[in-house]
Amino acid sequence: MHKFDEKALLKSAEDTLALKPEIEKIVDDICKEGYKNIFLIGVGGTICYAWQMEAIVKAHSTIDLTVVHAADYLSMGYKRLTKDTIVICESASGDTKEIVAAIEKVHSIGAKVIGLCDKPESPVGKSVDYRIGCPDSDGMYKWYVLMCRFMKNNGDFDQYDEFFKDMANLPAACIEVSKACDEKTMEFAKMHADDDVVHYLVGSGNLWGGTYSEAMCLMEEMQWMRTKSITAGDLFHGTIEIIDPDTSMLLFFGEDETRPQMQRVLDFLPRINKNHWVFDTKDYELKGIRPEFRGLVSPIVMWAVNMRLANNLELMRCHPLEVRRYYRKLKY
Amino acid sequence: MHKFDEKALLKSAEDTLALKPEIEKIVDDICKEGYKNIFLIGVGGTICYAWQMEAIVKAHSTIDLTVVHAADYLSMGYKRLTKDTIVICESASGDTKEIVAAIEKVHSIGAKVIGLCDKPESPVGKSVDYRIGCPDSDGMYKWYVLMCRFMKNNGDFDQYDEFFKDMANLPAACIEVSKACDEKTMEFAKMHADDDVVHYLVGSGNLWGGTYSEAMCLMEEMQWMRTKSITAGDLFHGTIEIIDPDTSMLLFFGEDETRPQMQRVLDFLPRINKNHWVFDTKDYELKGIRPEFRGLVSPIVMWAVNMRLANNLELMRCHPLEVRRYYRKLKY
Repeated sequence: MHKFDEKALLKSAEDTLALKPEIEKIVDDICKEGYKNIFLIGVGGTICYAWQMEAIVKAHSTIDLTVVHAADYLSMGYKRLTKDTIVICESASGDTKEIVAAIEKVHSIGAKVIGLCDKPESPVGKSVDYRIGCPDSDGMYKWYVLMCRFMKNNGDFDQYDEFFKDMANLPAACIEVSKACDEKTMEFAKMHADDDVVHYLVGSGNLWGGTYSEAMCLMEEMQWMRTKSITAGDLFHGTIEIIDPDTSMLLFFGEDETRPQMQRVLDFLPRINKNHWVFDTKDYELKGIRPEFRGLVSPIVMWAVNMRLANNLELMRCHPLEVRRYYRKLKY
Repeated sequence: MHKFDEKALLKSAEDTLALKPEIEKIVDDICKEGYKNIFLIGVGGTICYAWQMEAIVKAHSTIDLTVVHAADYLSMGYKRLTKDTIVICESASGDTKEIVAAIEKVHSIGAKVIGLCDKPESPVGKSVDYRIGCPDSDGMYKWYVLMCRFMKNNGDFDQYDEFFKDMANLPAACIEVSKACDEKTMEFAKMHADDDVVHYLVGSGNLWGGTYSEAMCLMEEMQWMRTKSITAGDLFHGTIEIIDPDTSMLLFFGEDETRPQMQRVLDFLPRINKNHWVFDTKDYELKGIRPEFRGLVSPIVMWAVNMRLANNLELMRCHPLEVRRYYRKLKY
């Protein structure tokens, strides 16, 4: 398997899960003091993580949550973001310029910022009120502990403790997912190694963020492949008309409440298209995860699939994931 | 000008604006009784109108507003939608099946529904608690009266009366916009009459809904042209890498607070692309609209441009806007 470092993946996930007591203390302190609402401010990949959490929180919680693009927050201000708001931002590099500027603006109105950032000495690391991170942290688990703790403290997640007991098994289960999906993702990569078609990626619910990210970040930015991501609900209102028999389509099935939306797509699609691939979290065992939690962890499971897809595309297309034409090469 | 019925356009806008006292009474009654939050539930074109309003409300108001796709509401429920929520839905046909089902679900939890629907005898028309509509109403003006009245009653829109004084001049001003943009939109239509490229449509803020709608509804559904719509903020995080010198791009400039995001795109783009078209509300006079209101009405102005684009594409591509391959032809 190309670029598959089992030990590093496990270490990253487990180190991040080990931050749990620290994250819980941050959230508990905030909840004790009280807050009015939560804003997740993101950009690029980090707004995709925020969307995953938004789908989970809005379905299961009464927390007043808003997700906003950093550029929009900077332009428009958002009147409901006040000194009583808790803002959550992520920046892997710690110097994403829209995020740095957003934190400054948030502070100017007196609100506090939780920063997901592995680099304490970076501009983001230094400026946030609470920093969550560790060297090479996993992108997902810190978001889960953080938002699930807010939900638990809000009375929306009675099974919190059971859930995180199972979560301890997820890193190892996802290693098995990576191995199990490698052949299929490689087959896709081989098929599209040299062509120049547009790929349509369809997702729903808590997998929408990952679907958007696979399209925009892994395929467009890192592979220079043309994509359009579309929700299962929207596909039937417009985009469906340009689907031909040969249009390349990828369907991302999870196990949350929106799975029937994806099923509706798959029930119809074979009548008009013979070139769609189904990636489905249900195909994997997930040892140690109770059935009732499978829907909630679908984004983490699918992320393992997305990474195999990206790595196999890199290999078959001879196009390193790190290559950029414009990003951080030209000024904009 | 192809399919340009000046009288019908004016009549539709003016008839819709004439609903103002009726809409105000509905909103005033609701505000007197009190409500906790507002949900806009849409699908396809109607969620695009909702997004336009969301950008305006979130920047200027403290109203607790959530926009949700009808399919997602049906799947996920959304815990913050309670009996104290005001729900707003639109269905032009009055029988959009996701909207009919959503209204039923909303009623089952005891919340009230305002329906934007021209057909009193349709399933939507018959089931909503308050119906707003008239024969052949305009898609935009009813949304504006409705949401601006909620904002005024919430103390967020002191200039409400002045704004609607100017709004009375907008239908005529938009007729001039249609005439003024016809040549440019026709030029675009001629250029792309027979090719088969992907078009990238970029918008921001209160024009994002219209940009998405132009891509998905007018170009994909009604013209079978491939498109991807992308926000100005997101373009720089992923999608930019697949922009070639010849990639077809359409930039939609409005005059709200997010205009600098579009300017950032245009400042950079000529270095890597020679095939982008700028459609800009600033190019039009808008007689009788005070400068401070131009940003707020940008969606209505750009809609006039979008319609000329659609009509001219229809003519040059010999592809009637009404033709569908799948929608309401096959079951899904």
